[in-house]
Amino acid sequence: MRVWITGANGFIGRHLVRELAGAGHAVHGIGHGALDQTEACRLGLRSWINGEIDAANLNALASAHGLPSKVFHLAGGSSVGLSIERPFEDFSRTVASSARLLEWLRTSAAECELIAASSAAVYGADHPGPIPESAAPAPMSPYGQHKLMMEQLCRSYACSLGLRCAVVRLFSVYGPNLRKQLLWDICSRLRAEPGSLDLGGTGAEVRDWTDVRDVARLLASVAELSSPASFRIINGGSGRGASVADIANGLIRHWGGNTVVCYSGVGRPGDPVSLVADDVSLRRMKFDWRIPLDQGLGDYVAWFKGHARG
Amino acid sequence: MRVWITGANGFIGRHLVRELAGAGHAVHGIGHGALDQTEACRLGLRSWINGEIDAANLNALASAHGLPSKVFHLAGGSSVGLSIERPFEDFSRTVASSARLLEWLRTSAAECELIAASSAAVYGADHPGPIPESAAPAPMSPYGQHKLMMEQLCRSYACSLGLRCAVVRLFSVYGPNLRKQLLWDICSRLRAEPGSLDLGGTGAEVRDWTDVRDVARLLASVAELSSPASFRIINGGSGRGASVADIANGLIRHWGGNTVVCYSGVGRPGDPVSLVADDVSLRRMKFDWRIPLDQGLGDYVAWFKGHARG
Repeated sequence: MRVWITGANGFIGRHLVRELAGAGHAVHGIGHGALDQTEACRLGLRSWINGEIDAANLNALASAHGLPSKVFHLAGGSSVGLSIERPFEDFSRTVASSARLLEWLRTSAAECELIAASSAAVYGADHPGPIPESAAPAPMSPYGQHKLMMEQLCRSYACSLGLRCAVVRLFSVYGPNLRKQLLWDICSRLRAEPGSLDLGGTGAEVRDWTDVRDVARLLASVAELSSPASFRIINGGSGRGASVADIANGLIRHWGGNTVVCYSGVGRPGDPVSLVADDVSLRRMKFDWRIPLDQGLGDYVAWFKGHARG
Repeated sequence: MRVWITGANGFIGRHLVRELAGAGHAVHGIGHGALDQTEACRLGLRSWINGEIDAANLNALASAHGLPSKVFHLAGGSSVGLSIERPFEDFSRTVASSARLLEWLRTSAAECELIAASSAAVYGADHPGPIPESAAPAPMSPYGQHKLMMEQLCRSYACSLGLRCAVVRLFSVYGPNLRKQLLWDICSRLRAEPGSLDLGGTGAEVRDWTDVRDVARLLASVAELSSPASFRIINGGSGRGASVADIANGLIRHWGGNTVVCYSGVGRPGDPVSLVADDVSLRRMKFDWRIPLDQGLGDYVAWFKGHARG
């Protein structure tokens, strides 16, 4: 199968390229990042366009390699904090690029299915338990709002304009090569000062942590599963929550040593107290999460110690 | 007060310019349409920029005339049918332009309040009675979806980024100078063939019809009413529904003659059966609708016979 991945050079994108290329698919990528031919090839990409997701670049890709059967849309903003600091940039990366992609698919590749990566940030706060896909969205940040708008574009192009789209709302994805967010911050501080660890928030914030290698397999599975529905929304979470304190303690255990953890007690704006998936859809798909949290944390620490430079 | 109107050259825009200029405000416009200085002046505009709503044009307006106290945002797509035919154009006109405007306000005129015209199309179908603002949005067309996305951008810039925005969801606005949609179609056919009138749908479709002169006064009232809330959504409807058959019969009565009306019985895609406002917010504002439907229909027929050329 010929597949395209937008944002193929990102954290999840690179793992998805590996997954799909490993399964024998011809994988082409588009997005930002200077990859030379050797590096793209090493990642598993047949070709790579470093540029905007726009009609010119999509036409160029199609002319050179043929139309795709599936497009995985991973390009977009990736930081709640940056979306508050530079909201228009986040809008452009998440919403405007999706509009151009959907329009190009409608006019040039209407048979191709789109699998779009969205985020649990669309749900917002006030969900003490597992969140079903049917929950009313109430994003707390421009990041979440823009992801919701991206979903709505997908819905509109599917329901009114004949495309087929599956939206996967990813929860807290972590794993090897992630050089930001909680696990990265903790490991960086453990390396700098192993004796004590000061963290924001209360430590009780609960997230649905999923290893990026499982997530790549999940996205591939969603694409493989044929569905009669022209539009689907699927929670891409495990249904199990773990607190920031659980993560910190797990990383410290794998790191080795006796680090003392302190929490500021002050939350970050746009940061809900709990985000855990209701995983009914994935259980119905019979998707199996293979990497338990403790193994994932161990792998992350091993990767960090072996590869990461602060 | 110095006010700007985007889409000031549109149907509602021109009426709003007249309303605000008549009340003594300095009104500047931006949007598409070739208006020379004389024509702009005749409309009531101090200045007019014929172009995209983007940072360059907004900066030019601010440099020449100073920052606005209020911006009325009326620019955007204006047709359900065109939004299905050319969805990306509708997205660009409604969503992308709003994103650029909001970002410019955030960075250059953060004290200015935005009053944005949205549409009852965000509600979608399945509302047999008056619709409160709190109803879950479920747009049935790209047009409605894009209006909803515009609202969400306003919400995000208000709730996360410090702007003040009021969104007014307009229902079925008609009146002098509207050269499309139901009233225009009916009058055009009555002129061409007064004996019989064939209409799509069943005639039982119910809408909340509001005269554009009342709507212009409503938008001005919303801007005048100071509110502690940084983000407001207000139904801009009268709370009273009238069917397509009511409209057809009223126009025929004002037109004169004995026209026989037939309905195809086939609805248009993206067209809900009923869209009537719950008008609690406007009653709380003590806003008074002054032009009853029958008077409005009479005025429309008089304008059509006097001014409109098919």
